[in-house]
Amino acid sequence: MSADREYMTRALALAEKGLYSTDPNPRVGAVIVKDGQIIGEGYHVQAGTPHAEVHALQQAGAAARGATCYVTLEPCSHFGRTPPCADALVKAGVARVVVAMEDPNPLVSGQGIARLRQAGIQVEVGLLAEKAAALNPGFISRMRRGRPWVRLKLAASVDGRTALANGASQWITGPEARADVHHLRARSSAIVTGIGTVLADDPQLNPRLDEPLPRQPWRVILDRELRTPVQARLFQTPGPVMICHAAGASRLHKAVLQELGADLEQLPESQGALDLTAFWHLLNSHEMNEVLVEAGPTLAGALIMGGWVDELVLYLAPKLLGPDALPLARLPVFEELSQVPQFRLQDCRMLGNDARLIMTTGHQVQPDGI
Amino acid sequence: MSADREYMTRALALAEKGLYSTDPNPRVGAVIVKDGQIIGEGYHVQAGTPHAEVHALQQAGAAARGATCYVTLEPCSHFGRTPPCADALVKAGVARVVVAMEDPNPLVSGQGIARLRQAGIQVEVGLLAEKAAALNPGFISRMRRGRPWVRLKLAASVDGRTALANGASQWITGPEARADVHHLRARSSAIVTGIGTVLADDPQLNPRLDEPLPRQPWRVILDRELRTPVQARLFQTPGPVMICHAAGASRLHKAVLQELGADLEQLPESQGALDLTAFWHLLNSHEMNEVLVEAGPTLAGALIMGGWVDELVLYLAPKLLGPDALPLARLPVFEELSQVPQFRLQDCRMLGNDARLIMTTGHQVQPDGI
Repeated sequence: MSADREYMTRALALAEKGLYSTDPNPRVGAVIVKDGQIIGEGYHVQAGTPHAEVHALQQAGAAARGATCYVTLEPCSHFGRTPPCADALVKAGVARVVVAMEDPNPLVSGQGIARLRQAGIQVEVGLLAEKAAALNPGFISRMRRGRPWVRLKLAASVDGRTALANGASQWITGPEARADVHHLRARSSAIVTGIGTVLADDPQLNPRLDEPLPRQPWRVILDRELRTPVQARLFQTPGPVMICHAAGASRLHKAVLQELGADLEQLPESQGALDLTAFWHLLNSHEMNEVLVEAGPTLAGALIMGGWVDELVLYLAPKLLGPDALPLARLPVFEELSQVPQFRLQDCRMLGNDARLIMTTGHQVQPDGI
Repeated sequence: MSADREYMTRALALAEKGLYSTDPNPRVGAVIVKDGQIIGEGYHVQAGTPHAEVHALQQAGAAARGATCYVTLEPCSHFGRTPPCADALVKAGVARVVVAMEDPNPLVSGQGIARLRQAGIQVEVGLLAEKAAALNPGFISRMRRGRPWVRLKLAASVDGRTALANGASQWITGPEARADVHHLRARSSAIVTGIGTVLADDPQLNPRLDEPLPRQPWRVILDRELRTPVQARLFQTPGPVMICHAAGASRLHKAVLQELGADLEQLPESQGALDLTAFWHLLNSHEMNEVLVEAGPTLAGALIMGGWVDELVLYLAPKLLGPDALPLARLPVFEELSQVPQFRLQDCRMLGNDARLIMTTGHQVQPDGI
């Protein structure tokens, strides 16, 4: 069992190599072991290219016969853009398959495992399932809930403020925290912001890392009245742009923004704002897994109070801006403590001179059988 | 050198055993090593009882001749309540003494080391000096600055709020964070609060740990108008109570509080509040090393803005109480970011479902020669 954990840990590490590239597919890693030796390894790199198991089988060759395959996600049993991995494992003659977690898609979940078992392969499911699920919160969310995993990033002083009352602001956090945000962007399918942030800060919202990126995430603007300026830096930065607006937007402005390459999407309104249920549905239809929201206090507050935030990543700078400074989220005046948004603290660490807290809400996407 | 570090690390661990008991003396540990074997160990337990070196020498006996002594603080050279440790080391015939840090008292600093060197003992100073200094921030502060080390404890939601706007509050943080506070209390010479907190919460402010405590810290109330009620739970809890008030307090109320065992201290006023410079001078005259402040937003704000806070221990619960809820500290409206109180983040960890951030201000008490 200890050896099993070790090989699955290796498979998880392999899967993580696809963190920035597999979208919209899940990150998956596989290891093939025979007589205590790793004879094949692989991970899924990019949609449309071979799955992790296929890479590992290719490396193992004929030696795969009688071996054990460790894979972080149930092998697929259907023809997608590539042939089913379950069939490939059967054909290669592996004797045993250890699967970290079942396919999160309820329509196909368990079918790959059944196919393997029918072929006489010994299959075990559930080893390090939580770690496997943590690799793919967005893919799992989309398969099980029909919406992306929503990660809200906020940066503030330790008293929860983002700028002085007079609006004076600058980067609150230090370079290490800001670099960390670029990693969050790189793993996301989309970075979402509101028109207020676009008009105030003119952000680029693209991941800027030292390493070259295989894929640029979408930048998505919630822009009810279609006020996005044509000079916005978003359009001068690599990566697709989507602008969501309400009915009644200027045809001319739409045409100009489309000319700049933006994808214009009309959404229904609800209580004077774009309807968020429709919004997530739209992003889901674009197969977006993890969505990073980098927004001002109005959109942040609306998402929190709407129960849309799955994960809150909070960067805190060791400063006190004072109770009159601008808050990180506009929230109502609560009458009872039971009404207050509550999270589970998942991680807390230092990044330079700042702290990073990762919190999740109750509506987690848990792997099956855990 | 690596062996030296190992033995000094052991001496530091021994010193820490005196965390709750050595007050007003510093926490000190000593290890005596000969031929790669520890032949004596000791730490200072309580003021008036033998110092760490003496315990270690007693255990080593005649074998101390030619040995090396590792000690976390410079051996004393003067007769206090016990004879000088430097003389004891000379008499025992140790060949080498490794000292983590010099005595922080500028009047005697270096004298113990000089005494050892005069006797032909090889002395090295500075090994793990930062860790040695971290054991005794209060003692060092008192010796070098003539005032205690002021540690402000605050507990809030991650948006820096302690109660709802309507006053609704309860324990914001969980049991692990609250247990941690009792450890902070146990190591403190005094726990300081304001009369507002006494009237609102009627706290006991004593350390409540599973282990029996060798010493009860002072509970000190800043109570300008002497409004502390005679029924306050402070008087029903073990440990001394000090009440600081301004001139003009009722003689009768003073007499009643003194009857309850309280030490009444009159302080000058400054800008409508008790003068804080005089207050720290008073605590220093009582040989108080580390002072833990557990106060409401008014006193917390005054201490922060007065530059009195050396260390801020902030417990953050993963909740959002909202921008209209009550702030952790009353601070002025800042016009420029350069005016904002800034800290250095020293540590950040999870305690149950809460985060604990430890921050220090610029005016640290650094060990010499580092």
